[in-house]
Amino acid sequence: MAPLVGILMGSDSDVEVIRPAAQALRELGVEYEATVLSAHRTPDQAADYARSAAERGLRVIIAGAGAAAHLPGVLAAYTTLPVIGVPIDSSPLKGVDSLYAIVQMPPGIPVATVGINAARNAGLLAAEILALADADLARRLLALRQSMAQKVQEAAAKVAEAL
Amino acid sequence: MAPLVGILMGSDSDVEVIRPAAQALRELGVEYEATVLSAHRTPDQAADYARSAAERGLRVIIAGAGAAAHLPGVLAAYTTLPVIGVPIDSSPLKGVDSLYAIVQMPPGIPVATVGINAARNAGLLAAEILALADADLARRLLALRQSMAQKVQEAAAKVAEAL
Amino acid sequence: MAPLVGILMGSDSDVEVIRPAAQALRELGVEYEATVLSAHRTPDQAADYARSAAERGLRVIIAGAGAAAHLPGVLAAYTTLPVIGVPIDSSPLKGVDSLYAIVQMPPGIPVATVGINAARNAGLLAAEILALADADLARRLLALRQSMAQKVQEAAAKVAEAL
Amino acid sequence: MAPLVGILMGSDSDVEVIRPAAQALRELGVEYEATVLSAHRTPDQAADYARSAAERGLRVIIAGAGAAAHLPGVLAAYTTLPVIGVPIDSSPLKGVDSLYAIVQMPPGIPVATVGINAARNAGLLAAEILALADADLARRLLALRQSMAQKVQEAAAKVAEAL
Amino acid sequence: MAPLVGILMGSDSDVEVIRPAAQALRELGVEYEATVLSAHRTPDQAADYARSAAERGLRVIIAGAGAAAHLPGVLAAYTTLPVIGVPIDSSPLKGVDSLYAIVQMPPGIPVATVGINAARNAGLLAAEILALADADLARRLLALRQSMAQKVQEAAAKVAEAL
Amino acid sequence: MAPLVGILMGSDSDVEVIRPAAQALRELGVEYEATVLSAHRTPDQAADYARSAAERGLRVIIAGAGAAAHLPGVLAAYTTLPVIGVPIDSSPLKGVDSLYAIVQMPPGIPVATVGINAARNAGLLAAEILALADADLARRLLALRQSMAQKVQEAAAKVAEAL
Amino acid sequence: MAPLVGILMGSDSDVEVIRPAAQALRELGVEYEATVLSAHRTPDQAADYARSAAERGLRVIIAGAGAAAHLPGVLAAYTTLPVIGVPIDSSPLKGVDSLYAIVQMPPGIPVATVGINAARNAGLLAAEILALADADLARRLLALRQSMAQKVQEAAAKVAEAL
Amino acid sequence: MAPLVGILMGSDSDVEVIRPAAQALRELGVEYEATVLSAHRTPDQAADYARSAAERGLRVIIAGAGAAAHLPGVLAAYTTLPVIGVPIDSSPLKGVDSLYAIVQMPPGIPVATVGINAARNAGLLAAEILALADADLARRLLALRQSMAQKVQEAAAKVAEAL
Repeated sequence: MAPLVGILMGSDSDVEVIRPAAQALRELGVEYEATVLSAHRTPDQAADYARSAAERGLRVIIAGAGAAAHLPGVLAAYTTLPVIGVPIDSSPLKGVDSLYAIVQMPPGIPVATVGINAARNAGLLAAEILALADADLARRLLALRQSMAQKVQEAAAKVAEAL
Repeated sequence: MAPLVGILMGSDSDVEVIRPAAQALRELGVEYEATVLSAHRTPDQAADYARSAAERGLRVIIAGAGAAAHLPGVLAAYTTLPVIGVPIDSSPLKGVDSLYAIVQMPPGIPVATVGINAARNAGLLAAEILALADADLARRLLALRQSMAQKVQEAAAKVAEAL
Repeated sequence: MAPLVGILMGSDSDVEVIRPAAQALRELGVEYEATVLSAHRTPDQAADYARSAAERGLRVIIAGAGAAAHLPGVLAAYTTLPVIGVPIDSSPLKGVDSLYAIVQMPPGIPVATVGINAARNAGLLAAEILALADADLARRLLALRQSMAQKVQEAAAKVAEAL
Repeated sequence: MAPLVGILMGSDSDVEVIRPAAQALRELGVEYEATVLSAHRTPDQAADYARSAAERGLRVIIAGAGAAAHLPGVLAAYTTLPVIGVPIDSSPLKGVDSLYAIVQMPPGIPVATVGINAARNAGLLAAEILALADADLARRLLALRQSMAQKVQEAAAKVAEAL
Repeated sequence: MAPLVGILMGSDSDVEVIRPAAQALRELGVEYEATVLSAHRTPDQAADYARSAAERGLRVIIAGAGAAAHLPGVLAAYTTLPVIGVPIDSSPLKGVDSLYAIVQMPPGIPVATVGINAARNAGLLAAEILALADADLARRLLALRQSMAQKVQEAAAKVAEAL
Repeated sequence: MAPLVGILMGSDSDVEVIRPAAQALRELGVEYEATVLSAHRTPDQAADYARSAAERGLRVIIAGAGAAAHLPGVLAAYTTLPVIGVPIDSSPLKGVDSLYAIVQMPPGIPVATVGINAARNAGLLAAEILALADADLARRLLALRQSMAQKVQEAAAKVAEAL
Repeated sequence: MAPLVGILMGSDSDVEVIRPAAQALRELGVEYEATVLSAHRTPDQAADYARSAAERGLRVIIAGAGAAAHLPGVLAAYTTLPVIGVPIDSSPLKGVDSLYAIVQMPPGIPVATVGINAARNAGLLAAEILALADADLARRLLALRQSMAQKVQEAAAKVAEAL
Repeated sequence: MAPLVGILMGSDSDVEVIRPAAQALRELGVEYEATVLSAHRTPDQAADYARSAAERGLRVIIAGAGAAAHLPGVLAAYTTLPVIGVPIDSSPLKGVDSLYAIVQMPPGIPVATVGINAARNAGLLAAEILALADADLARRLLALRQSMAQKVQEAAAKVAEAL
């Protein structure tokens, strides 16, 4: 089946930070593809990827980047698909630089930004968007919420004892 | 026609900052509703709004809030619809407080965050999400991109002369 | 004896940061209970906890949370008991995000915020509040102050020698 | 009737920022006194005020200060009454300096910090603490919450129309 | 004569902030061109501009942008000409966002960043670069330094009197 | 009588921010001189000023500067007289840039830094240093403290009435 | 010989950060004493120390503290001797909190602030102040400057080879 | 052959952070020299270095420094050669202090600032400037860009497999 989500990162050194996005999609049965594209070192390929994404069947793009993180915004410039940006804590500024460089997009070209290093939430947000047209996926998202609530309750029991 | 987007704000003092979200949706022909809900002063109504949003036909929620901006996250806790958060610059901290309080959500409950005061981008992001299931809307989004490019070119001519 | 203080945290990974709140209360002979509640993963339970806290005999709530730390504010929305918030340094932003998300509450719903990771001070503040109606506890608080002063004087002797 | 709350500020230029604390207490029928004390220009008077506060009948101290805001912490050093600190935005740093100088107290001496300029919340927090021993005050606090919820609903109607 | 410096900005609302770059170049007799190009709204034109800049005779590019300021970095991705970035204070974050988004470029693609709103320094830096191959320009730069020193001395006289 | 304190500023646009340093010294009867020197536009004169300061009879140097405020540190490099630095809020960064550029001096070359725009405290600090060798000045400093305490008490009376 | 400099710290956990102040004074032959005093846990002793410092023969006070670092300012409130503050990086905020809490003193009560953890510079600044009345110490300070310059030149030789 | 680029640092403890600047120049066949100069400990030598740089044949100066990083600005004050500043993360403030102290230069004296610790980009920027007069170097820069793009594509293949 063709992938619905493209997971991009600016450097392969980001792969472990971004992995939870892929894991969340796998847990939820959403097809994805993953690759490395640099807004600065491979700008033409990044532009081509975004420009052709919709016709290749992608519905959502997730892009993680650190420091002067331009990748999500550059992709968003070439597509009207929703682009989710993941700021990565990879410089001495601890991700504040990438957060600002991703979230503060100018009027006209939005990037849906999640927290610093919050790749799992990027995957879940992509799934929430896809679930608008996929009732089964919506149910799996609800089940995931219930299992999270369950885990909180188990943790509560442990903490009551530990303190 | 039933609204597809709910536009919420934590206080009616935020209405002018949030208005561009509504304007973007109107320009693009997307039905929306708008109201005030406070995560802290009307927590039950906020929870009810989010819990019933999907079955009332809403597909995307936009929520703007300032300072310790909890509204987007609180709504996201009660729905798996995509929630778009708009940090508002309404405290001496110039919106850094609301940006952090919205974007730094814990794993499991994402909020799609746009820039500080960037309500127009929230509207556009909602439209991008809805356009995945609405080819006409997708075309209108592309046309809007072209008109933005057109305006940049007009500005370029003026600047070339002015400097 | 029924607990007077409820100690809550958003995740069991916060238990070691929060433990000093419990320790302070134990040193001072104040009954408490401790559990995990998530503003986002178990929002209904969090609401129920706060709504029923007063009638269950609780007098003060301590809530610790990191990142977009909504738990103290969400609890405060459902009770007029004093809620003490403990920002936790659990994201790359080193607790600035949780500090802002806890302290910058909108007018009407206060949260008594202590320092980042300052769970011991949360416990002491709860005791100071309870001591208003408990002269014995007030005396134990004064004794604790004296023992702290004593320790400073012992430290002074060591430092005079060390430098 | 003797005042239960002492409202202090480091300079009379802070009086308008602090006024909402007094207003909240007046709305709720709580007796207070207000004065100016400087941790740096009148340190002995500040110490005396805090040292004698409990025996003079005060139950809670509210202290607002800007810049290197030492007043709340200095008062807390001389009393085990709960001290509520209000950071004031009176320097080019927009209140971040006073927030840090108030909230980041060392272990042993807590200050209950509210948001920058959030004097109304300081008044409400004082009332919440006093309400633990005053069922009437607790009822007035609940009524205030209901009237806040009411106002949100009125605002909602206006916003639905305005957008 | 063909322009040696291209002055770009992301929006015509930046023209007054950028004007001092043009003024500095005019004072020094350096030919320039000025236009508007948006990394997000006209990405192809921005890419084309940078790709063709060297063969059109440009030697240095100055690019000013605010918020998530991608323009300087995007241009630098398409050329090995020196690109000078001017962060602009046009969002509530007062230019910190644009500074980080411009200066924190990844290894491989530098942007020569000047201060927030420091367009005059961008013009002077471009002139310093061009002066390496233009001894007359180097002399004019030295003369400008002397006239600045002269003005400081005149100011000194006034201040000595004023205080 | 020869001046004991040199008051320097990087630009005559800083004169009103720096004036309170001169006023404090005049109130206390301390001789001073004031001038403009730029670490960047008149570096040789700045170096000469500091190098010759001690033999010309100066005992303390006060230097105010904004943005990348190098003047105090550059002067300190050329003298072992105490140099007092006044960070000035003259850039969009509100004085954080000048504070860091002044206070974070490397080991070996201290600058005694006062608060942002806190020129009056710079003057008082200079007087405190000079008072170590001038018992009359020490008495005038004490009297000034008493008059400050007096003013706080007058303010207290007004505030008690106003709230 | 009676000590001329008092070195204070808020906690004995700060002793290693503060030690370089003592070392600098020992290198320069300046007598000092060192102790622990807490603005919050031993406020009366801190006040007494500062109040009696001048008559006990102290000329300069160095005070290091972390987090909501009140010690330098509290001491300065009780003496007109020069007080040098050393912000200590001992909280998750990396010393920004203590820097702001020390340097942003209100008008009237200056603290001479050095860099975060910069205890050696505090010692040197104390020596610069004392050297105004001690020509031998002034010469030792100059010799120290020359030995620092010497070390830079030795480092230069190594670096020229290493790169 | 005479060096075209001078690589300076404020302390030999910075040598490993600065080394990538030298490596980039070596890869590109650009002659350089490297040394240590302190704006504060060897101010005359720093001034002499910059003043004589042009006539000694240098075309570009790279200067790295941490904390209150004055070296790049001080050098720029004495030359009209382009000066590239590298902020170094060597204080608790993680390089924000050095970034501000380098980039926020006053009008008239620019410093071309690269990212925190971004010495490789400083070397590449120097090469871009020199390549304006050296077509071979320009070709080598383009080849380096192509090899970077190649590496991104290799990384892409690995990531596609890994996720």
